[in-house]
Amino acid sequence: MKVYGDLQSGNCLKVKMLLSFLSIEHDWIDVNILAGETKTAAFLSKNPNGKIPAVELDDGRYLCESNAILGYFAENTPLLPTDIYMKAKVYEWLFFEQYSHEPFIAVARFIQKYLDMPKARMDEHASLQEGGNKALQLMENQLSETQYLVGDEMTIADISLYAYTHVADEGGFDLNRYPDIQSWCRRIQSTSGYVGMA
Amino acid sequence: MKVYGDLQSGNCLKVKMLLSFLSIEHDWIDVNILAGETKTAAFLSKNPNGKIPAVELDDGRYLCESNAILGYFAENTPLLPTDIYMKAKVYEWLFFEQYSHEPFIAVARFIQKYLDMPKARMDEHASLQEGGNKALQLMENQLSETQYLVGDEMTIADISLYAYTHVADEGGFDLNRYPDIQSWCRRIQSTSGYVGMA
Ligand SMILES: N[C@@H](CCC(=O)N[C@@H](CS)C(=O)NCC(=O)O)C(=O)O
Ligand SMILES: N[C@@H](CCC(=O)N[C@@H](CS)C(=O)NCC(=O)O)C(=O)O
Repeated sequence: MKVYGDLQSGNCLKVKMLLSFLSIEHDWIDVNILAGETKTAAFLSKNPNGKIPAVELDDGRYLCESNAILGYFAENTPLLPTDIYMKAKVYEWLFFEQYSHEPFIAVARFIQKYLDMPKARMDEHASLQEGGNKALQLMENQLSETQYLVGDEMTIADISLYAYTHVADEGGFDLNRYPDIQSWCRRIQSTSGYVGMA
Repeated sequence: MKVYGDLQSGNCLKVKMLLSFLSIEHDWIDVNILAGETKTAAFLSKNPNGKIPAVELDDGRYLCESNAILGYFAENTPLLPTDIYMKAKVYEWLFFEQYSHEPFIAVARFIQKYLDMPKARMDEHASLQEGGNKALQLMENQLSETQYLVGDEMTIADISLYAYTHVADEGGFDLNRYPDIQSWCRRIQSTSGYVGMA
């Protein structure tokens, strides 16, 4: 199995973390977004949407969208509950991540860390702070009640949300405002099999 | 069971369509976004993220995020494959919808249809066209090969993507450029149990 990704990207880290927690062997193939490597014909034949991560299974079939990849490998493991309501709550957080969290926190971090805060995008960076803090506050509220986002066991919801949350400071967010998020990050980091960014 | 939503919203229509296809009885409670009804304390106790749709199950538990709601009700029905790769492909489209489709097409439509194109948002409306057309083209490519987005049977991927696609013209997109999308829309509309926008 091959995974195409960049270990500085949270969306890719999610996949790396999950495969490591589940001890699933794979080849990791580095793809450089800034060098246009997601826009080549060869890459577009793997993911027509031109984004990483992309997984190539041993039978040659592909799977994209980080959170769909998490769901695929977590099926029938303790990282995805079998109770259908609990499973739906996991997916609720996964969709929340893509709609209400990543577009603020990952984009602010991209502007700050990858692009080094170009003048032309400073207003955008500022405008992303409110939405990002709103998402972090919603996580904080949940994590003040439960050890993980869906109850007291780690699921793929935690892996997905952890990816950009633990580096949110690189997008200008102050994690000191969220003590329960900080304890949760430490809990995940001390789980056997944990891997971080490159 | 109660569903809080607005039938002009694609995210809410998804839920209405699924419940109708599956003949699941429910009370529909209209929520007016523009009147601030998603920001009241009463509504935030149902969905702390302040968004519709939100479902209140008979036992009083809540579920939010349109696509997580689809997954919950479709589990163990023909609308969600049991093969884990096919199921993951359905979720791949659901995440694609929230990340690469809805933020362009639904937002352009909101600016054009709900807000009536205020001057202050005309640049934003224009900037959304490229991403929306890219998403539509990716759907068109798939639908030139298969009858539905994941193979030749309808799944919740089709319900989710249909919601904003069939009204994409209200956001300035020209569906005449996408004949296979148009046939697919007609196929969905002629399925028994189909309901459209209010
Ligand atoms: N919804 C996608 C988002 C993936 C994504 O945006 N990947 C970025 C890197 S973090 C990328 O490949 N960007 C290149 C581009 O969009 O051109 C997922 O969750 O996998
Ligand atoms: N990711 C959410 C998005 C829901 C959403 O954005 N709903 C809109 C109506 S279409 C809303 O409630 N907006 C009110 C707001 O954000 O203040 C879902 O799929 O359910």
